Amino acid sequence: MPSYTAPVKDMQFVLHDVLGIGQSDIPGYEELDRDTTAAILEEAAKLAEGVLAPVNAIGDREGCHLENGVVRTPSGFAEAFAQVKEGGWNGLDLPEEFGGQNLPYVMNSATGEFFVSANMALNMYQGLTHGAISAILAHGSDDQKAQYLPKMVSLDWTGTMNLTEPHCGTDLGLIRTKAEPQDDGSYAITGQKIFISAGEHDMAENIIHLVLAKAPGGGAGTKGISLFIVPKFMVNDDGSLGARNGVSVGSIEDKMGIHGNATCVMNYDGATGYLVGDLHKGMRAMFTMMNEARLGVGLQGYAQAVVAYENAVAYAKDRLQGRDVTGTKNPEGPADPLLVHPDIRRVLMDQKSFVEGARAFTMWGASLIDRAHRRQDAEADGLISLMTPVIKGFLTDKGFDMCVQAQQVYGGHGYIEEWGMSQFARDARIAMIYEGANGVQALDLVGRKLAQDGGKHVMAFFALVKDEVAGAGDPRMEDIRAALKAASKDLQAAGQYFMENGMKNPNDALSGSTDFMHLFGHACLGLVWTRMARAAYAALDAGTADPAFYEAKLATARYYMARQLPATALHLARIRSGAAPVMALAEADF
Amino acid sequence: MPSYTAPVKDMQFVLHDVLGIGQSDIPGYEELDRDTTAAILEEAAKLAEGVLAPVNAIGDREGCHLENGVVRTPSGFAEAFAQVKEGGWNGLDLPEEFGGQNLPYVMNSATGEFFVSANMALNMYQGLTHGAISAILAHGSDDQKAQYLPKMVSLDWTGTMNLTEPHCGTDLGLIRTKAEPQDDGSYAITGQKIFISAGEHDMAENIIHLVLAKAPGGGAGTKGISLFIVPKFMVNDDGSLGARNGVSVGSIEDKMGIHGNATCVMNYDGATGYLVGDLHKGMRAMFTMMNEARLGVGLQGYAQAVVAYENAVAYAKDRLQGRDVTGTKNPEGPADPLLVHPDIRRVLMDQKSFVEGARAFTMWGASLIDRAHRRQDAEADGLISLMTPVIKGFLTDKGFDMCVQAQQVYGGHGYIEEWGMSQFARDARIAMIYEGANGVQALDLVGRKLAQDGGKHVMAFFALVKDEVAGAGDPRMEDIRAALKAASKDLQAAGQYFMENGMKNPNDALSGSTDFMHLFGHACLGLVWTRMARAAYAALDAGTADPAFYEAKLATARYYMARQLPATALHLARIRSGAAPVMALAEADF
Repeated sequence: MPSYTAPVKDMQFVLHDVLGIGQSDIPGYEELDRDTTAAILEEAAKLAEGVLAPVNAIGDREGCHLENGVVRTPSGFAEAFAQVKEGGWNGLDLPEEFGGQNLPYVMNSATGEFFVSANMALNMYQGLTHGAISAILAHGSDDQKAQYLPKMVSLDWTGTMNLTEPHCGTDLGLIRTKAEPQDDGSYAITGQKIFISAGEHDMAENIIHLVLAKAPGGGAGTKGISLFIVPKFMVNDDGSLGARNGVSVGSIEDKMGIHGNATCVMNYDGATGYLVGDLHKGMRAMFTMMNEARLGVGLQGYAQAVVAYENAVAYAKDRLQGRDVTGTKNPEGPADPLLVHPDIRRVLMDQKSFVEGARAFTMWGASLIDRAHRRQDAEADGLISLMTPVIKGFLTDKGFDMCVQAQQVYGGHGYIEEWGMSQFARDARIAMIYEGANGVQALDLVGRKLAQDGGKHVMAFFALVKDEVAGAGDPRMEDIRAALKAASKDLQAAGQYFMENGMKNPNDALSGSTDFMHLFGHACLGLVWTRMARAAYAALDAGTADPAFYEAKLATARYYMARQLPATALHLARIRSGAAPVMALAEADF
Repeated sequence: MPSYTAPVKDMQFVLHDVLGIGQSDIPGYEELDRDTTAAILEEAAKLAEGVLAPVNAIGDREGCHLENGVVRTPSGFAEAFAQVKEGGWNGLDLPEEFGGQNLPYVMNSATGEFFVSANMALNMYQGLTHGAISAILAHGSDDQKAQYLPKMVSLDWTGTMNLTEPHCGTDLGLIRTKAEPQDDGSYAITGQKIFISAGEHDMAENIIHLVLAKAPGGGAGTKGISLFIVPKFMVNDDGSLGARNGVSVGSIEDKMGIHGNATCVMNYDGATGYLVGDLHKGMRAMFTMMNEARLGVGLQGYAQAVVAYENAVAYAKDRLQGRDVTGTKNPEGPADPLLVHPDIRRVLMDQKSFVEGARAFTMWGASLIDRAHRRQDAEADGLISLMTPVIKGFLTDKGFDMCVQAQQVYGGHGYIEEWGMSQFARDARIAMIYEGANGVQALDLVGRKLAQDGGKHVMAFFALVKDEVAGAGDPRMEDIRAALKAASKDLQAAGQYFMENGMKNPNDALSGSTDFMHLFGHACLGLVWTRMARAAYAALDAGTADPAFYEAKLATARYYMARQLPATALHLARIRSGAAPVMALAEADF
């Protein structure tokens, strides 16, 4: 059975040493001193380690079961979910008027990492609810907010997002679910939605479905789409629950992973729905939540790698196999621990340097969302909008790879379900797919975000890198800054290639979209590792009581720079080869 | 449900256009003209497509079940296995005196690809038997051969390989299974073996276990290991089956994939065993089979990618989503097929260029095994010995990646088991682990094979590349040869780095071992793609009736050169960063 220990100290390092959140000018951040965040993180860690993680493997093994229209969640899930609820974790960053605590979003992300590492499938019931709340907060009427939000914030009711249909996911313009206006101002929703995470389950009194559907008069494609609230049980004016609405679960999917979360086919058969926001503006309503939702999925990708890494380290220290070629390390034992072998260290350092970089990148992203929302900072909004597909696509691609590498450390035992390493890889796999498959993230990045607002946001990113490279001239940082500079040069060269070629032939840009997303991802991790190294030197210079911790940050930064960042050159080479090799084959020749 | 079509035409291209097997001087190859191999491949294709593939998903879903000491294989497996048996496929390359057909090993590999793509789990029952036969052929006594081989060649009996124990896999010197000499010359075998594929099942009359165990007087470590035959049922002198031997299945593992193959814990409780080959020389006996076994696992890695690719192509042509940015391709439909999108083409070209390169590489390797065995060619033996860890490690790492990419083409459906794409990835995953985890392959390559026989074999490899780069001066090949040359230069530079640094500090070499294995793998695929391109031009110049087929080979070669081969520079950069970043952290800091 795998174990999980929440990396509280590493998270504190990111929040305070790197992001300096206590000194930030973002409203609400002034409350986040070291002691406050430590208290919150310790509480979250306790829940994650003691309550959520212990039922993670059970969830995978038992899965969810549909019996007479009711979805039964795995043993222990309801009890664990009750503790999430009791702790008020869902409302951490939500408005006080609806029962939340109004803390910054960055704290939701920080604690969220622990919950996802501990039990991704269970956390999704909460995560989907949080997403639905955000949609209603942003676009719902005051009545809707009053009617739904308090119960959703408290997790008495959970939420879902209904976008995909059997014939379309990415291309939502094709959806067929219909919304017919009724005399009372509501709509009758009819159609089928698939891949609805937490669509039905036994852990909440009611489920509030947010559904994309086409109402008459909206025109073709995505323009005709509106967003509706469809409660599982009708809600009376006094807040009590009424009759069952015309929505039901048709079946649940047998999936590669996240078995503990019910992925439902939802059938809407004239179900009563209530318009959220403006008619025919449903896509806009969905898009406003996307930065947050996609950051959450990027977080899932690396959070699985965090727990996989922890277990790989434990195994590498414990398992005796072979001898250190430079001299026996465990002479009393029959063999040395795996950790002595350079190739084992290599994969562990790959994992460590990735997850720590990913954490810093994601928390930085979360703080930009706070800055955008709490200070109405358009620059922060633009920057996080640019980096969102990178956080989602790069961190989930790499997060999955790292889970696979962690599994590999276990040798044959990694393939045996009992040891739990397979689950991390299988669970992490979905993050590359949902909330916009990673190819779509790359398209969003290259096709939309790069040129957004005249390319202002990517220029702002380059300016940040330039400042970091120029730095304060600390000679100890020279090698690290040189690596970041080289990566940034590759990124700029790729952008240049797109500008010069993408206009004439869009396929020259699109053929390099995934490579660009990865190139950008490496540059971002290079940037945050440079910041982390700077923070580590600062702590060491200030005479920290824990020098080993900061020295390890420096060693890990240098590992990333030496072994991972050089990938930017490969991505650039591929991008520069353009569309010709990619598009050469006739359809029949595939 | 996924489908499978055996790539007979592509295999014929490799065997004849590229390897020219009909014109080879290897004994037995003279029979392999185009018509003969076509007939064999068509028969194998029929079996793979019509019998093995249809029960592949069933095997995954049902798995194997242990009931009262008997393992029940999935529905339809026994019937399908009976057809493999009836077709005589197991004896294709085995000696006629034991019921085989004595065809070259390359034909076993060529037909094997089809069987593995169709149903890897089922094929393993046969593959393990084939491996056990090879061990007995190479090291068994004449009596043992007469007693066991005819029934094993016919698949009336199957075989297993018993190496791993709970506390050791890679480091076999640690095994504890004991062999006590008995008065009648046999041994009493006692101990526990784990991860025994096909260790127990209901498809054969008897199971012949090959077991590594320690007999008294052999000394410590691997030197004390001997190899034993332990039949499930004792075999009487007249060939009839006698009493049940003291070997039984303790449990079967719940695995990430290959559910249709029973992975058993085998308990030996004073079981009667018969020494194979010399006492205390069991490791040597195992090693002589290793080239073949590891080539077989490399084949598994890419064979799963073959069928995953085929299904990804079918989905990309069928699924309508979005529009071609350069102009609508399917104006009558609501959207264009996925295949119009450059990023979808990119992943399909990655897959196509990999699987076709991997096929050519593996069949070349198989022909080197034939050359080594049938002509006692020491150079061929040295070359395949060098390339074996590359075939195993590189092709399984990449094969798994490609299965994951194929799954990604399906979007959300790729994550749903019903669609079958998850199974390909989960099944392919094991090939990176068993028969020596890929990190061990890299260690074998860098730590043993590179310097073997004074580095003669790697020099021979470079000479081959040099000849291919020099070529006949065909100007149409210039770009392809230039790419191969660049990759080869990177490989030589990496070798140079190891020579200059590995002696002083072995960890400088070992820290780059996996990167070197991948660098070498790319160089090998670059080499075979250059050969394939040359063969394609030759066919076009000769006025082939099927120019589109050969043009597609050229386009795919150029894709590999432009998009994949540049990875050599990244691997070289990582190798050159040496051991320092890899080994910097203290154990406590992981």
